[in-house]
Amino acid sequence: MNFSNWAASIQQRTEIALGSALPSSQVSPTRLHEAMRYAVLGGGKRVRPLLCHAAGDLFKADQNSLDTAAIATELIHAYSLVHDDLPCMDNDVLRRGKPTCHIEFDEATALLAGDALQTLAFQVLSCRSLDVDLARQIEMLNLLATASGSRGMAGGQALDIAATNQQLTIAALELMHIHKTGALIRAAVLLGAHCGNATPAELDQLSHFATRLGLLFQVVDDILDTESSTATLGKTAGKDAAQNKSTYISLLGKDQAKEFAVNLLHESHSALTPFGDRALRLHELADFIAKRNF
Amino acid sequence: MNFSNWAASIQQRTEIALGSALPSSQVSPTRLHEAMRYAVLGGGKRVRPLLCHAAGDLFKADQNSLDTAAIATELIHAYSLVHDDLPCMDNDVLRRGKPTCHIEFDEATALLAGDALQTLAFQVLSCRSLDVDLARQIEMLNLLATASGSRGMAGGQALDIAATNQQLTIAALELMHIHKTGALIRAAVLLGAHCGNATPAELDQLSHFATRLGLLFQVVDDILDTESSTATLGKTAGKDAAQNKSTYISLLGKDQAKEFAVNLLHESHSALTPFGDRALRLHELADFIAKRNF
Repeated sequence: MNFSNWAASIQQRTEIALGSALPSSQVSPTRLHEAMRYAVLGGGKRVRPLLCHAAGDLFKADQNSLDTAAIATELIHAYSLVHDDLPCMDNDVLRRGKPTCHIEFDEATALLAGDALQTLAFQVLSCRSLDVDLARQIEMLNLLATASGSRGMAGGQALDIAATNQQLTIAALELMHIHKTGALIRAAVLLGAHCGNATPAELDQLSHFATRLGLLFQVVDDILDTESSTATLGKTAGKDAAQNKSTYISLLGKDQAKEFAVNLLHESHSALTPFGDRALRLHELADFIAKRNF
Repeated sequence: MNFSNWAASIQQRTEIALGSALPSSQVSPTRLHEAMRYAVLGGGKRVRPLLCHAAGDLFKADQNSLDTAAIATELIHAYSLVHDDLPCMDNDVLRRGKPTCHIEFDEATALLAGDALQTLAFQVLSCRSLDVDLARQIEMLNLLATASGSRGMAGGQALDIAATNQQLTIAALELMHIHKTGALIRAAVLLGAHCGNATPAELDQLSHFATRLGLLFQVVDDILDTESSTATLGKTAGKDAAQNKSTYISLLGKDQAKEFAVNLLHESHSALTPFGDRALRLHELADFIAKRNF
């Protein structure tokens, strides 16, 4: 199967798994469940589920377990977007080409939908149907929590807020992104590998890969924010400059930022060397992330 | 040890356990960690930790495991208060006798602090040091998630919002409270019992106790909201009437609400009958909840 067919199949099974895990909008409280489904379904590149499956495939992991781990990371990602778009944060009106959750519903509902999406991630990952031993499942739960919390993704968002109207150093910008985007991307890769019973050494190697890939993702994001239209991105373009945020573009200039992206892509590929041909999908995903235009 | 000495000792060890579990405010992102500590430490009755310990003591559970389970429920409770106080929800300025988190810090920080407190609850409960078998630990994680999410606490808050300016039936009010307050109170009791390896039958019996107790807690809350001062409560008094919310007082009148509380207290005690004298602390806690004035 070529990469785009594989990616489409993963995106499709992710959509189905998310649709089953999310409570029906017929179930009380209906408006909350409607908002949760609105925020999660029918959009998004599903980068984290793709990474989770690609890492799991490296170890021939059980596909149903991968679906569970994949949607846990996607639910955390979706909750973070809903809260990030709220008026007290980025105050954004457009996400995945649609009105943001608090515009479509209301602020209180969006706040609770984000809260409940986070909870659902841990509910899903603590189900009995995961085909890994119990000690590993608990480690996976702890990994997801650590990646999402104040020393991971939520901490990165706090650093991002603190950085508004500040000129950051490259090191500070990198630290912020390693938390804000990188931690959950790394978790997606490692959860996939855990589903395939990866050894500690293999997890370490993949952690190195995922860290470089997470930064690559962000550098490309910064480039797209300046080069693409709102219509292409499905979210407000030019936001970083408008909010006077430091980006790889503002600190390095466009040419050097692109060079940095090329280097990060190279490092991502190199980190996969020990896995040989088995890491095909992860190689392809790194290329996909480097070359995406949305 | 008499009840108030026992309660004071549990409150003290809960405070210590929370202080250790929360990242230091010296650790980056410092403002986020400061806000998390502000929202959790140095206040609160710690009703959920008391219930968790009391239920665990019934089965001679390991005290350190009970601390872990207890603070997981308290972190969920604390996160819900931070988000509940936000301008888009109850828009409150006073909590536990102090300015609410978004007043002391800012809205974005309070939002993220609440988010990260929820995550920390799952991080804490997925640690390796819990002295229960792994299958039970995963069941405990799933129980906490289910109690906190859209069909538990967060769902109850959504029902609460939908009910503003509505005259509810008694059944609808009960349904709202069973979710909003009851689900986490029940989880606190059951997590404590799990720490002591309670059997399914014992868990069922305690679930019945906790459900009646959760309602009792809420009826007493409604009575206190009309009878106490803001200074005594440490939070804004008279809020329910001001927000035109249905309460047991508005639906039943004060006398009948008090009679309902007496009945719920009786049912709570009855549900503990199978445990005999071993359930002393739970009996005492039910009395404490019925007679509290703060």
